[in-house]
Amino acid sequence: MSAEIRLAARELAERARLAARKLARSSSAEREQAVRAAADAILLRRREIEAANAADMGKARAEGLPAAMLDRLRLDGDRIDALAGSLREVAALPDPVGEVVEAYTRPNGLRVERVRAPLGVILMIYESRPNVTADAAALCLRSGNAALLRGGSEALQTNSALVDCFEDEAVQLVPPDRLLLDELLQLEDKIDLCIPRGGPGLIRFIAERSRVPVIKHYQGVCHLYVAADADLEVAERLLVNGKTQRPGVCNALECLLIDGRIAGNALPRLARALRERNVELRCDDRALRILTEAGASALAAQPDDFGREFLDLKLAVAVVDGADVALAHIARYGSRHTESICTRDPALAERFLREVDASCVLWNASTRFNDGGELGLGAEIGISTSKLHAYGPMGLRELTCTRFVVRGDGQVRT
Amino acid sequence: MSAEIRLAARELAERARLAARKLARSSSAEREQAVRAAADAILLRRREIEAANAADMGKARAEGLPAAMLDRLRLDGDRIDALAGSLREVAALPDPVGEVVEAYTRPNGLRVERVRAPLGVILMIYESRPNVTADAAALCLRSGNAALLRGGSEALQTNSALVDCFEDEAVQLVPPDRLLLDELLQLEDKIDLCIPRGGPGLIRFIAERSRVPVIKHYQGVCHLYVAADADLEVAERLLVNGKTQRPGVCNALECLLIDGRIAGNALPRLARALRERNVELRCDDRALRILTEAGASALAAQPDDFGREFLDLKLAVAVVDGADVALAHIARYGSRHTESICTRDPALAERFLREVDASCVLWNASTRFNDGGELGLGAEIGISTSKLHAYGPMGLRELTCTRFVVRGDGQVRT
Repeated sequence: MSAEIRLAARELAERARLAARKLARSSSAEREQAVRAAADAILLRRREIEAANAADMGKARAEGLPAAMLDRLRLDGDRIDALAGSLREVAALPDPVGEVVEAYTRPNGLRVERVRAPLGVILMIYESRPNVTADAAALCLRSGNAALLRGGSEALQTNSALVDCFEDEAVQLVPPDRLLLDELLQLEDKIDLCIPRGGPGLIRFIAERSRVPVIKHYQGVCHLYVAADADLEVAERLLVNGKTQRPGVCNALECLLIDGRIAGNALPRLARALRERNVELRCDDRALRILTEAGASALAAQPDDFGREFLDLKLAVAVVDGADVALAHIARYGSRHTESICTRDPALAERFLREVDASCVLWNASTRFNDGGELGLGAEIGISTSKLHAYGPMGLRELTCTRFVVRGDGQVRT
Repeated sequence: MSAEIRLAARELAERARLAARKLARSSSAEREQAVRAAADAILLRRREIEAANAADMGKARAEGLPAAMLDRLRLDGDRIDALAGSLREVAALPDPVGEVVEAYTRPNGLRVERVRAPLGVILMIYESRPNVTADAAALCLRSGNAALLRGGSEALQTNSALVDCFEDEAVQLVPPDRLLLDELLQLEDKIDLCIPRGGPGLIRFIAERSRVPVIKHYQGVCHLYVAADADLEVAERLLVNGKTQRPGVCNALECLLIDGRIAGNALPRLARALRERNVELRCDDRALRILTEAGASALAAQPDDFGREFLDLKLAVAVVDGADVALAHIARYGSRHTESICTRDPALAERFLREVDASCVLWNASTRFNDGGELGLGAEIGISTSKLHAYGPMGLRELTCTRFVVRGDGQVRT
């Protein structure tokens, strides 16, 4: 049995490796066209995809999946249109492959270039949303990579119908079998990168097992530090947007740090704006005292509320005495995802931007901007919280490596 | 006992993390000066370093270490001078930290920059050469990273004396204790990157155990493909240089692929040049027949001679019929390190440069050029054969990541 699974994993990975070698020889126009053709096929096969999704939804309902998961799983006509549209956008993105990042001539006449090339074979592991299947396949294909897609078992039929829309053998669905996945994660000679997307449990599980390099997309424990000189109107806007515009995502705000010099006046005002939007505040002692005295509703923070990704209309609040304390708090509790400062002082802002260790640091802007589309990458395959290879949103370029290409006329080393 | 070791590992790593945070606040001039000061200290403390090295050498001799290892371990006056000189060169390299890789303004007015920042804490694991201690410490420090240096136990006193020359707490020696190393490799929240340098056994050992991301510096099984239209004078030069200039290193040539259309005439000539330099040829059937008929000395290749890193005056030789076969051979047996083609045909050369998957591909140039210094990176901490983060020689820039730095005036997401 386990020999069979090992064989199945090798065969899957070898097909992907062969497809990757073929893709490396393809032109940019061919890869663009392959993604466009998949978008067309998705619209043409709309009925089949809807039927597959209806089957997955029926099974999921029968198994009693929670409403939020059912919603993520569902593909209706509008979502299918959006899916095809997003594939067309990926097809139209500038091709990273072949991009010359640097070019120079050495004293001995060697012409050296650093040129972008595909990574090779990419294994994506994710949970319920079927749009990840189409998006990841398109991003991999556009950047010349073969994709092994391992979606959630609850979306199997939908994912299968979507993968069928890609004619290329470079896009393969991995059957949702845990032992098979275990075997794939051992094939470091066949698979170049593994990207798990999902809860911290899934990511940790993969990272512990994998011999294939993993880029982690961990949680975002994002802070906004409102400095003593902040424009409170701006602070309120950033706070409300960061916390409430889409609370369930990784770049949503999870903690407000407010400077002790203004907390007495500013905190009740900011709290009011949040409370109007049903945000629950979980406060440290000083914040709680200020809000209670001001007659505002607030809760005492639990010990683990700092450093916690609520993904909900909940916000941790702490009063900090100056930038040093704010920076230390972020260094301790932040998750290196997204950190923002609200201040009018350029020197303080630049210090924050320089010293805070996070994939994206912002001055007077909402944490919600740490996103491939918003930062101009066109599309993203995820947001990396590890520093190697990619830190922050990963677009097409982050699915490539750079190689040294050297042209000479007989040079040898002396 | 194991709790003690776990604690020791955490303390080491936490000191490094703190030092890294301090380094992130330092100026480029300060970091440059810290490396220069270490170079000065190495010259000032020459006697202490020599005494420490003499102690290590005495112990190594008593333990019967082979001559080649003793030579790698030895630090004499000239080598100490060279060491200090190499540190001065690293100090003078352009600072990668703070480099703005890209800058643009989004339609909503957000100013986005991608800025280089240190990785954080880097764990180097290597074998006997003490110069790696000084070089790695200098490269890490110059690029704002804290270094944990785990050299071979046979060089302990020498490494300790060298690390003492770095005043900065950002450079720490890791005692050569296997259990301690095991614990360090679990600390993915404290250590950002692990670079093992040494034999494939060491690298595999580390990669299997490490939760910290590893950049592998595997072996170089480097090929030269001499195409049918090659200038044979150039081919001979590349071949002799690739194989004999320094046979024990990873970018030395290990296999000659010669086109079937010219093998009959060209191979005996090329073989003669190699035989004059005592290179043993291990040939496939066709090459063996040609050479035997020409009265040249050659051996039949053993089954594992293709794909083998000889690191010696030995060369595998195969006759290939055209570029497709050459490319397939390299795809099968190459190690993604360095691959070269000798041809006068630009179209063929460009195909080779595009399709061969290796960290460095060369046209009419010796494989020996895949080296940080030769490619203009200034200095290298190793040559990565994995594609993530760095592929090929790693210089200062490859010890950094890029962060998104965003400046706004109150933008929120809608």
